[in-house]
Amino acid sequence: MKVSELTLLQNWFERLAPIGALADGGVTRMGYTDIEDEMHAMFAMFARELGLHVDTDAFGNTFASFDGAPRTDVHLIGSHLDSVPHGGQHDGVAGVLAGLLVMKMCMDEQFMPRVETVAFRCEESSAFDTACVGSSLMLGLIDEAKTKKLKNERGENLYDVLRKRNDAPHPYPAPARFADFLEVHIEQGRILEERDVKVGVVTAIAAPYRFKVVLTGRQDHSGGTPMAMRRDALCGAAEVVLAAEETALSFKGIPLVATVGVVHNAPNALNTVPGETELRVDVRGIEDASILRAVEQIQSKVRRIAARRRLEYRIETIATYPPVDMDGTMRDAIERAAVTVDAPHLSMYSGAGHDAMRMALFVPTGMIFIPCRGGISHNPDENVDLLDVARGARVAYETLRELARNAS
Amino acid sequence: MKVSELTLLQNWFERLAPIGALADGGVTRMGYTDIEDEMHAMFAMFARELGLHVDTDAFGNTFASFDGAPRTDVHLIGSHLDSVPHGGQHDGVAGVLAGLLVMKMCMDEQFMPRVETVAFRCEESSAFDTACVGSSLMLGLIDEAKTKKLKNERGENLYDVLRKRNDAPHPYPAPARFADFLEVHIEQGRILEERDVKVGVVTAIAAPYRFKVVLTGRQDHSGGTPMAMRRDALCGAAEVVLAAEETALSFKGIPLVATVGVVHNAPNALNTVPGETELRVDVRGIEDASILRAVEQIQSKVRRIAARRRLEYRIETIATYPPVDMDGTMRDAIERAAVTVDAPHLSMYSGAGHDAMRMALFVPTGMIFIPCRGGISHNPDENVDLLDVARGARVAYETLRELARNAS
Repeated sequence: MKVSELTLLQNWFERLAPIGALADGGVTRMGYTDIEDEMHAMFAMFARELGLHVDTDAFGNTFASFDGAPRTDVHLIGSHLDSVPHGGQHDGVAGVLAGLLVMKMCMDEQFMPRVETVAFRCEESSAFDTACVGSSLMLGLIDEAKTKKLKNERGENLYDVLRKRNDAPHPYPAPARFADFLEVHIEQGRILEERDVKVGVVTAIAAPYRFKVVLTGRQDHSGGTPMAMRRDALCGAAEVVLAAEETALSFKGIPLVATVGVVHNAPNALNTVPGETELRVDVRGIEDASILRAVEQIQSKVRRIAARRRLEYRIETIATYPPVDMDGTMRDAIERAAVTVDAPHLSMYSGAGHDAMRMALFVPTGMIFIPCRGGISHNPDENVDLLDVARGARVAYETLRELARNAS
Repeated sequence: MKVSELTLLQNWFERLAPIGALADGGVTRMGYTDIEDEMHAMFAMFARELGLHVDTDAFGNTFASFDGAPRTDVHLIGSHLDSVPHGGQHDGVAGVLAGLLVMKMCMDEQFMPRVETVAFRCEESSAFDTACVGSSLMLGLIDEAKTKKLKNERGENLYDVLRKRNDAPHPYPAPARFADFLEVHIEQGRILEERDVKVGVVTAIAAPYRFKVVLTGRQDHSGGTPMAMRRDALCGAAEVVLAAEETALSFKGIPLVATVGVVHNAPNALNTVPGETELRVDVRGIEDASILRAVEQIQSKVRRIAARRRLEYRIETIATYPPVDMDGTMRDAIERAAVTVDAPHLSMYSGAGHDAMRMALFVPTGMIFIPCRGGISHNPDENVDLLDVARGARVAYETLRELARNAS
């Protein structure tokens, strides 16, 4: 790694650090907010400082390209700049900056393929209850009708939010101008760190199946209502939380996780037996069959719990995506690039979703994982070694060289 | 019951109905807000329409008295006008209006003891995490230092809220001007209804012991973190919710309930393993020993759950009060009054807390329960028959007659 590359990364991260910063070192940079706009403006500034051309598509996704280069048949590299609430500095950002660094390497080494860096909008599902909003809009995977249904925490729908920003509220046809897509991303797990390997070659991206469970009991005075007369929604919800955990744990040897990340309890008052509790459940795996089996097991436990506790229940699917395999040619190119860079690497699947899983539906797509400390992510303590970011960028750069070799 | 009394009650409830009204028929009238101010202003208007004098103490509690009557040795009747969030129309309000009705009966029947009706402020603990704020301030049970610690949902402390309202931020000495206190209140349980009895003579008020449990695990990406590597705060909290329920259920034959009414989960995002979950637990009973035994059992389960799940935990007592017995002379007077009115009655304890439990620390205090439909309270569906309110007022009026007989 060149010292200048590390200095550049350090400078970029330092200039981004204050944006959406919280007192404890974490950040909140929700998709399609002023804070995310600041991130994109800063990214555009970095790109221009490298002499790159910057423009934006109809949905606020930002692209850095070589000035005057043709805009077709492009190798796209990038990730996103938004975060979960109270998240970390590197999720997404590391991949976008790696893209810029790849373009700097291209210029420095006078290897000039058609490459662009993209900063997608609103990848985290915490903003509009759906993941990869910016890339999905660009690809036509979210249509106008759906933008009117997706709402943020303040109850605004995506359609209105996009209109207010003067971003197009309706999708463009999926752009045909990309040859392939490469995403560098922190692992968000502990596998690379535990095996002391610096590069993960992603084989597949696990798919989330997300559903909402609403349990309705009877809101009663907590003092005046004997235990036996209660229909406590939160007690039922507590059983559902544990049922989801128990179900996922029972899938021994099969990569599958289930998480209840969200709970809304009403009226949430100290002296009132909870009348209605909503949970949001996220089940992920890399095989359709095991995901659906887990979802069915959890939902049938919900039905049993509700019946036993005389609660009403409602189950609503929030989103469901199939697991996505990465492209074989891209994987091979990344592996050869890792060998060239002399970086120990291993093949692994991604538990987390990424913009790459949307891009993979349209163009050959590959992902390069780099370690993050302790596997911690979506957390203020998320941290990466800048050496690993620079190494990831170098592997991406060599991947472009491999692809150029294939093509010639 | 006189038709004019029912008409008056109906008129009063109808005029109060729009204040803090929600679309589903419920109300949100939080203590020390503009909405509660409107309730007190309307109460003052009703009192003046009856020809009564109205004034307010240093903490916004409103008193209706006979114009020109001496203000010492007063039989005080009343309750509160605030509600829980998303609560019902009758909790508290029925008792305040019953007070006004008693004063109307006194005037109509030219029986004029020294009686006043009070509308206390902020009885529900949902506003400042502590119950009976208005009566406690009046009685000097909340001092200035404590007003600076009590905070509402917006993080404002009671001291500042009182100062902004020009209410005195420091307590007055407990007023010695009251001879006794009588509170008419809806039962908030199903016992009267199930036994088809119209009047409950309260023997004791169960005391709440309230504590907060904060469980801290590790906030992780829900996709990238295998089940076995997690320290999920919400899963631990789910076990605590069920442990509280199980503990209370194990107290067979002993009047005791435990409720987890409040849960705050962080960061509460769909793609993040919860890092910190806070619960608030309310344990109530009518014997100190069983309350403390239940609290200790729940807290020791918290410690075991936290240890097994490698979570950090914090337990904080929010508030603890001893159970309060009602005064024997007052109980006898209420029972004789019920006989006079020819109302079937029974003795029962109150599971819920009331302003009466604060007043009972200073003056002889009694409580009259009236039925509420289905025992439902702290709920938009809370409902009472106005006949029962009028009957409660009549029993209260006859109780004053009994007390006058005792005194003479």
